[in-house]
Amino acid sequence: MSKFYNRRTNELTPYVPGEQPKDKKYIKLNTNESPYPPSDKVLDAMRRAINGDLRLYPDPDCVELKKAIAAAYDVAPENVFVGNGSDEILAFAFQTFFEAEKPVRFPELTYSFYPVYAQLYGLAFETVPLNELLEIRCEDFFNSKGGVIIPNPNAPTSVAISLADVEEILKKNLDVVVIIDEAYVDFGAESAVQLVQRYQNLLVVQTLSKSRALAGLRVGYAIGAVDLIAGLEKVKNSFNSYTMDRVALSGAVASIQDFEYNRTIQNKIVLTREMTSKALQEIGFKVTEAKANFLFVSPPDSDAKKLFDRLREKGILVRYFAKTPQWLRITIGTDEEMDALISTTKDLIKEGSSENE
Amino acid sequence: MSKFYNRRTNELTPYVPGEQPKDKKYIKLNTNESPYPPSDKVLDAMRRAINGDLRLYPDPDCVELKKAIAAAYDVAPENVFVGNGSDEILAFAFQTFFEAEKPVRFPELTYSFYPVYAQLYGLAFETVPLNELLEIRCEDFFNSKGGVIIPNPNAPTSVAISLADVEEILKKNLDVVVIIDEAYVDFGAESAVQLVQRYQNLLVVQTLSKSRALAGLRVGYAIGAVDLIAGLEKVKNSFNSYTMDRVALSGAVASIQDFEYNRTIQNKIVLTREMTSKALQEIGFKVTEAKANFLFVSPPDSDAKKLFDRLREKGILVRYFAKTPQWLRITIGTDEEMDALISTTKDLIKEGSSENE
Repeated sequence: MSKFYNRRTNELTPYVPGEQPKDKKYIKLNTNESPYPPSDKVLDAMRRAINGDLRLYPDPDCVELKKAIAAAYDVAPENVFVGNGSDEILAFAFQTFFEAEKPVRFPELTYSFYPVYAQLYGLAFETVPLNELLEIRCEDFFNSKGGVIIPNPNAPTSVAISLADVEEILKKNLDVVVIIDEAYVDFGAESAVQLVQRYQNLLVVQTLSKSRALAGLRVGYAIGAVDLIAGLEKVKNSFNSYTMDRVALSGAVASIQDFEYNRTIQNKIVLTREMTSKALQEIGFKVTEAKANFLFVSPPDSDAKKLFDRLREKGILVRYFAKTPQWLRITIGTDEEMDALISTTKDLIKEGSSENE
Repeated sequence: MSKFYNRRTNELTPYVPGEQPKDKKYIKLNTNESPYPPSDKVLDAMRRAINGDLRLYPDPDCVELKKAIAAAYDVAPENVFVGNGSDEILAFAFQTFFEAEKPVRFPELTYSFYPVYAQLYGLAFETVPLNELLEIRCEDFFNSKGGVIIPNPNAPTSVAISLADVEEILKKNLDVVVIIDEAYVDFGAESAVQLVQRYQNLLVVQTLSKSRALAGLRVGYAIGAVDLIAGLEKVKNSFNSYTMDRVALSGAVASIQDFEYNRTIQNKIVLTREMTSKALQEIGFKVTEAKANFLFVSPPDSDAKKLFDRLREKGILVRYFAKTPQWLRITIGTDEEMDALISTTKDLIKEGSSENE
């Protein structure tokens, strides 16, 4: 509490991102970063942008980047919005489309930034539980009064819904905005971008942070109907004319254009995910059907906090959420990192069972 | 109007930044950019940050940059907030400190983003006219119910208030936040940073865009009491955990530390400003007492729009605001650019008077 803050600030509880530890070197499987570096073409493009022109403002309309994204997804530049990470875009979207008195709907177990955005802008929200397989049931999202936001695949579960389900949700919400948060879509889910021309209520949000290995660059984008994009521009231009710096814009264009490299690292991560999922199931873990660059797993004794703590002691960081005490979220690293995770986990489980004898 | 936007978005009128023309090469004196490039140390630091680590998120707390700023201004890191340009920080400050029902007060003629922020967050505001010399009268800002924001020097007038006046305003507003927007302070005004330890209600906002020649990098910072900084962090962390990318953070640290280079280009700009001011006064312009990197000038016939249009035709871009039809804002460029401005203006005035004969 502070007399200097307004009421809403005093009541705010911020989002807490995954740990970025500085104490020692970990095998870092806790924030869904890519284990592979970004494309050399991206680094080269960024280096070329480092020159005296940094004295000048960047293009506030980010035309070149919008054109590159439009070309990559076969839409018009007017269907594209870009921002300082997809989190910024999600914040703008909450601020642009949702109303205080009409609850926006999202899954109960999902990206925990959504209720924070709602709080930040004084918006009502309602949540719907997942089913017992931790899946989103599409019919739970029909006929929302205020709007819908669903990550596909969902986080932290890694479970995806089908494009047919997304389309059903769109059809049953024609008067409100439906946001499909596709931060992890490139690892195996079906993108809803192909529905953008047919549904005026659809906004798809993606990011370069995960599947393009650029979490350190802060670039996200949204693809949607022209009217929705114009609304986001209105809010962005009332907040900060220049959200994207010159170097980030150059790197982002190169990243969007380097399909081949991105596809290669995405495929590697998918293969490593399937290997890891299989190995953990073999030692008794429950593992959801993962479509993102992370697994959502429950250890044989269901004590996820204990496993989290022990892995941390052994130098392996994964993510534990108090609201799902039986589960851990594990980012997919390199094959070597996942081998280390698997063998360390096996040892810990062995120790655990001999302790119990 | 769109059925998909909420009420506030439908009512919003965004800020319009100065033109960034793409049609041809202008002498660009319209957006207060530096005519000199950033320090080579900044460019080198940025180049070093371009590597595979871009796959990892940046430090969400920006500790290294906060430490560098704290050392430069002799405050603690807890007194420092950093953001994606000072515009982002100003937006967060409006959102953190001001209330819907208690008007924040600012000058009538000032940075035109302030009323946009108020509108964006549904806040009340009240404005106070400048005096006939286009100066801020300090007593007009006493006893605000909601808070105060003043740019020092003011924009677009370039006129500064004294540190004593700032302190008076602080003393007469102990229960509300007073923001001193020092985007242009390094060109000749007295900074209020030295008052931060004594006034719990003071927030000073600065930027690397102008006096450090880094408009293209998007870095701003605020210095204030720990409580105010914590409030900004709360809002920022409810909006976007990572507002600053790795390359920008590295460049910003180097810029903050390169006092010598920055002082050199600031001094050059001040000398060029004084030369330009004198030359324009000699040909009959009214010119305010400028303390920023721009002049606010009124041509002999008071027809600023005509002069703006003709300068544009001749390849010189300055800034015209419809609300001050007798005045132009002219960014200080290099000596050569200002010589071109002065001689072109002389020619245009000569043409104008022979037309009138």
